[in-house]
Amino acid sequence: MGHRLAASDALFARAAQVVPRGIYGTRGPLLVVPGSYPLFVRNGRGARFWDVDGNEYIDYMCGFGSIILGYADAEVDAASREAEASGFSFSQPTEHFVALAERLSQQIDGMAWALFTKNGSDATTYAVQVARAATGRRKVLCARDAYHGSYPWSTPGDAGLLPEDTAHIHDFVWNHLGSVQRLIEQHRGDIAAAVVTPYHHPAFDDSELSANGFLQELCRLARAEGFLIVSDDIRVGFRASLRGAHTVFDYQPDLVCLSKAIANGYPLAVCLGSEEVRRAASSVFTTGTFWMHHGPMAAAHACMDRLAASDGVAQMAARGQQLIDGLQQVATRHGQRLTITGLPAMPKVRFVADRDMFRLQAFCAAATRRGAYFHPHHNWFVTTAHSEEDVQRTVEIADAAMAETVAAGDRPFA
Amino acid sequence: MGHRLAASDALFARAAQVVPRGIYGTRGPLLVVPGSYPLFVRNGRGARFWDVDGNEYIDYMCGFGSIILGYADAEVDAASREAEASGFSFSQPTEHFVALAERLSQQIDGMAWALFTKNGSDATTYAVQVARAATGRRKVLCARDAYHGSYPWSTPGDAGLLPEDTAHIHDFVWNHLGSVQRLIEQHRGDIAAAVVTPYHHPAFDDSELSANGFLQELCRLARAEGFLIVSDDIRVGFRASLRGAHTVFDYQPDLVCLSKAIANGYPLAVCLGSEEVRRAASSVFTTGTFWMHHGPMAAAHACMDRLAASDGVAQMAARGQQLIDGLQQVATRHGQRLTITGLPAMPKVRFVADRDMFRLQAFCAAATRRGAYFHPHHNWFVTTAHSEEDVQRTVEIADAAMAETVAAGDRPFA
Repeated sequence: MGHRLAASDALFARAAQVVPRGIYGTRGPLLVVPGSYPLFVRNGRGARFWDVDGNEYIDYMCGFGSIILGYADAEVDAASREAEASGFSFSQPTEHFVALAERLSQQIDGMAWALFTKNGSDATTYAVQVARAATGRRKVLCARDAYHGSYPWSTPGDAGLLPEDTAHIHDFVWNHLGSVQRLIEQHRGDIAAAVVTPYHHPAFDDSELSANGFLQELCRLARAEGFLIVSDDIRVGFRASLRGAHTVFDYQPDLVCLSKAIANGYPLAVCLGSEEVRRAASSVFTTGTFWMHHGPMAAAHACMDRLAASDGVAQMAARGQQLIDGLQQVATRHGQRLTITGLPAMPKVRFVADRDMFRLQAFCAAATRRGAYFHPHHNWFVTTAHSEEDVQRTVEIADAAMAETVAAGDRPFA
Repeated sequence: MGHRLAASDALFARAAQVVPRGIYGTRGPLLVVPGSYPLFVRNGRGARFWDVDGNEYIDYMCGFGSIILGYADAEVDAASREAEASGFSFSQPTEHFVALAERLSQQIDGMAWALFTKNGSDATTYAVQVARAATGRRKVLCARDAYHGSYPWSTPGDAGLLPEDTAHIHDFVWNHLGSVQRLIEQHRGDIAAAVVTPYHHPAFDDSELSANGFLQELCRLARAEGFLIVSDDIRVGFRASLRGAHTVFDYQPDLVCLSKAIANGYPLAVCLGSEEVRRAASSVFTTGTFWMHHGPMAAAHACMDRLAASDGVAQMAARGQQLIDGLQQVATRHGQRLTITGLPAMPKVRFVADRDMFRLQAFCAAATRRGAYFHPHHNWFVTTAHSEEDVQRTVEIADAAMAETVAAGDRPFA
């Protein structure tokens, strides 16, 4: 196939000597399909990256969503470089900090203030603290299998944790209002917040939009019961709207967390809040050495300028829809059925009747070996750099990958 | 005095509209001396920065220690830019990741592996999780008033917190072995780790080196009682040694956290660990969208190259000692007594018999208005960019500031 991973595997062998698991978190070999996926990248441009063996891929993971204009975007990178050329990481903020806080608190619907951090987890953790400070209550409701960061209160891991870490975190089932109502009855008067994503996008499973007014009813219950709504908009974010995904999915949060694509790959996160919670927000102490780093803030300005000027949201939706339509045609041609859920710009793909996900793994691995980087267990991401021709080429690759998958039957990969 | 803060104050007024407290954390007006300190910076170069009103300062805060070679270091910035020019924030790591893990786990004494994050708090939080996973125990001992990050288990704040956040965090008193022994007796068999800094550097108070073998005895107790030692080397770090400050202060940790100056201002943190805790480290799930960002990793390589090639540690120690000697001479000349503690490269200055710290605040404010940025409540930082002439000029400024302070008597600032 011409797909060699020798350099990638050699780097992984080195990494395994000096890094826990070789690669930690969600990027290691175990979460993709060992043997078919590059584990180390050399460079990227636009919608493409090249691994350390020189294989070229049209990318559908895009830095786990942090790349929204394509890799190495000239305008965003120039904005960051220009800001950093005159020094950075000062003890004090720069004007970029104020200008970005002004812009975001005006742009993100219903928000009055902004607080910048580095990780999405910093922002969600702070939002929970603000909700507890605002309400004087303890309990936080989260959808089961939703991901709100890897800190102890929200991590999907288990080692190194204590019962106290999650003593006041309670799971409801997405789109199951009864499960929320049960928690409210159990903890009435002690619920500080519900943390929700604009729609449910768990790993390893279908994405699910809010159905039958679930999010709206959750917000109504929050007002009635006196708890806050935190919108974890870190993954969806600007792929739905520059005004916050809640404007698309029609709910009104008290706090909004953004990160990932906000600065096209530069490390930045932000927690925004309404006027009502400003006082509580001011009472919570939080800080970080690099949180005033203004390069990423300048990059965020440029990233939003570019997305707004090019109607990037519509563009990504169109390319995502083109990909979905193409994949469905490919599936039909090969007698397969795909379920594709979530926003078109971040589709979650699976085969119908593929409970162990072997067929999905085989298909994604075959596509990746051919140059379309498809993740088998995570939703994918489209950027504004994905052209019609890129997606067309991707669908051709998917066609060959599907033929190989079907020919191999349902046997697990070797 | 020619020291105007109109633009700075105007920006703060804007910030106050859209940011909790205007500026959050440790950078706002309340932690310095309102009216004398610039709150917003325009640019920096080497040991100097210029605020948004155009005032020039010789800087002794240096991005809260994250700047160690001076602002806008050409070599470090070029390394970051070169790495980023071919794309960054990939879904996978690059070779920089492996090379830096190899270098640090060889360079930092006693360490076998490395895990990169963004914030120092990420690294200390992970270290605590690893210690709990390694020991199957819950309790973590920390020195009272030590700072290990702003997450709920370690924050100096109080709003938005729950008793569970710190249920298993217990304070001992630095250099007071009896307070450690008491905790050991209370929690024998349930102590996972003691988290220590290479020496005690609390805000608002003197720095204290380990005395009478305190750290060594703590390590001996850890071995005897089966708990781990986490060295929070985030602030001291490369200002003491490129091999880890524990090699200077003569103790052997199981886990070491570095951040701040590791990449001369680029956001990067790392938790390193010994071979013995590798398995536990691998069991703890942690991840972050930006943690594979290789620009800061390339910058870290360049930063360490520069520090090693120029014997930066010795250079900073010499400049720090020059500053300390100069300040003591100034004090003596004006009939004052200063206590200056900590590493010369990060001195903590106070006046003897100045319990309310008004004299210290007046002196630091007077120096800052004259162009030597002295923080009244935090240890200061020296970089390799501070020249002998810079320090000489600083001492002259300190002399004038001391004259003003003494002339004003002990009245609090207006």
